[in-house]
Amino acid sequence: MRIISYFDQGVPSLGVMTSDTTYAAVHDLDRRLPHTLDALLRLSEGLAKLRTAAGGAAGKHRLSEVTYAPLLEQPHAFWALALNFKTHILETGLTTSEVHPQIFLRVPKSFVPPNAPLVAPPLDLARAFDYEAELGVVIGRGGRHIPIERALEHVAGYCCVNEGSVREFQRHNRQFGLGKNFESSGSYGPWLMTADEFGDPARHEVIARLNGVVRMRAPLSDMLFSVAQVINYLSTGYTLQPGDMIAMGTSGALPPAPDDTAGNDLSGQIRHKPIPGSVHMKPGDTIEVEITGLGVLSNPITADLPVVYRPA
Amino acid sequence: MRIISYFDQGVPSLGVMTSDTTYAAVHDLDRRLPHTLDALLRLSEGLAKLRTAAGGAAGKHRLSEVTYAPLLEQPHAFWALALNFKTHILETGLTTSEVHPQIFLRVPKSFVPPNAPLVAPPLDLARAFDYEAELGVVIGRGGRHIPIERALEHVAGYCCVNEGSVREFQRHNRQFGLGKNFESSGSYGPWLMTADEFGDPARHEVIARLNGVVRMRAPLSDMLFSVAQVINYLSTGYTLQPGDMIAMGTSGALPPAPDDTAGNDLSGQIRHKPIPGSVHMKPGDTIEVEITGLGVLSNPITADLPVVYRPA
Repeated sequence: MRIISYFDQGVPSLGVMTSDTTYAAVHDLDRRLPHTLDALLRLSEGLAKLRTAAGGAAGKHRLSEVTYAPLLEQPHAFWALALNFKTHILETGLTTSEVHPQIFLRVPKSFVPPNAPLVAPPLDLARAFDYEAELGVVIGRGGRHIPIERALEHVAGYCCVNEGSVREFQRHNRQFGLGKNFESSGSYGPWLMTADEFGDPARHEVIARLNGVVRMRAPLSDMLFSVAQVINYLSTGYTLQPGDMIAMGTSGALPPAPDDTAGNDLSGQIRHKPIPGSVHMKPGDTIEVEITGLGVLSNPITADLPVVYRPA
Repeated sequence: MRIISYFDQGVPSLGVMTSDTTYAAVHDLDRRLPHTLDALLRLSEGLAKLRTAAGGAAGKHRLSEVTYAPLLEQPHAFWALALNFKTHILETGLTTSEVHPQIFLRVPKSFVPPNAPLVAPPLDLARAFDYEAELGVVIGRGGRHIPIERALEHVAGYCCVNEGSVREFQRHNRQFGLGKNFESSGSYGPWLMTADEFGDPARHEVIARLNGVVRMRAPLSDMLFSVAQVINYLSTGYTLQPGDMIAMGTSGALPPAPDDTAGNDLSGQIRHKPIPGSVHMKPGDTIEVEITGLGVLSNPITADLPVVYRPA
């Protein structure tokens, strides 16, 4: 089952995909079901109830016309992993524990819905605005001290995550802080694919495509810490909540082909150590994150407003 | 004006203090006003409306009988600073940028209300459960690119924060992650004191008291980065939201007196480098964080349940 969050005349709504191009509105299937994914996941047997309601439904709505909402309205926690692929560790030259995952947090407003523009920082603030292509894990049933062998029972489903990052700010100090939390710098979606349909994460690949050029491609079996290990780890100190998100970390860049001008141009990179095949995002670009067998998350890049005091 | 969040027969409610020992219920003053601080701060001129409603009200309720709720129900972001006092930098032996503040995030469930027990991790998980006594800054009016000279206009008020930390987990990897986000490991409150009443943060002191013994005492003028500087910094990348919290960082431990057994016993400390006068919290203790001129946040410490799988 694939579940989308969208705006129906401005109202947050849930949909169930009935094919690769159509969806049914959940409120047409069963008016008693919640209209956000957060609320559905908090509801006892919420996914099962939706599955029953959706059984055999014919989708009336065209996905090509949808306006996506954030897949989750306000997750209690958006956990994210740093340095969870060897290729990314090698290209950055950074070290990380092989025993415990490296974890930080993001705030909801650092993300925009699928298809909505990611906002590149004003050039006088930062230029190293980077995609990170990751598997997103959405918790269904909460729990504490979850054993590894039961961890996947707590997963509602999966999505694509673009964990967009502003490198200059990430390096301002030891903790990533604002560099991982620029407003509208990332996205996740386009839908939740339930765990039963997605199957074993290790059998999928994650791909990043900038302006149509494949910039990352890695099997999810390359992750240092598996989904089950991370769920086990987080739940040692914290009762995982329904609707919590875990972004599993990005792979490294693919080596560029000889005729790949953008990928070979290291002079444009704002880094301590340039990475062949890694290209910063800029206004006018389109970035896609694909998880094979799940779908493609696509966002255009737009320029932020100038640096001017804007009281809200 | 001092504002408390409390449970009125289980329902989250707002109160205004009418003396050091009494409060009036906001729903008795004006039923149209919101019943959470988050909602009040999002309401245009919410604080001013409450001030008008509270003018001259006599408090009927005794503070000694209140059951506090979390001061904020669900802040969009709980920002926190690492290494913002020289005494703490020196005692840890860590380095930090002098140009940019060091910032990380905490999730709402890592905090309990005033007077509620902080939960010490099971001993087989961790033993270095530490208080951090900090000034909490609650954003009133949101904004982006806020200049330093206007930053304090965006502060609704201040509170005490105990940014309780589990050191073993904090050191698992480079990012603090779970070590700063153990469930029920911290607290903030006991109330919001509005900015007009609190005045210049630099003229106050922050104090930590464990079982009645003063363990930290530092002027807030010792902060490396001021409240205004941190607001300015965060707003370069992010539109600060009404109800966002910023915990300004802890000072270092006071040197223990010669006859201070607990403070001089370095053998009990689980650290790379023991710190005289720093004592881990353990079940049965009481920890207080005071901001002079504002009030005292007090929490008992209780033991967590054993490490047993608990699906939620």
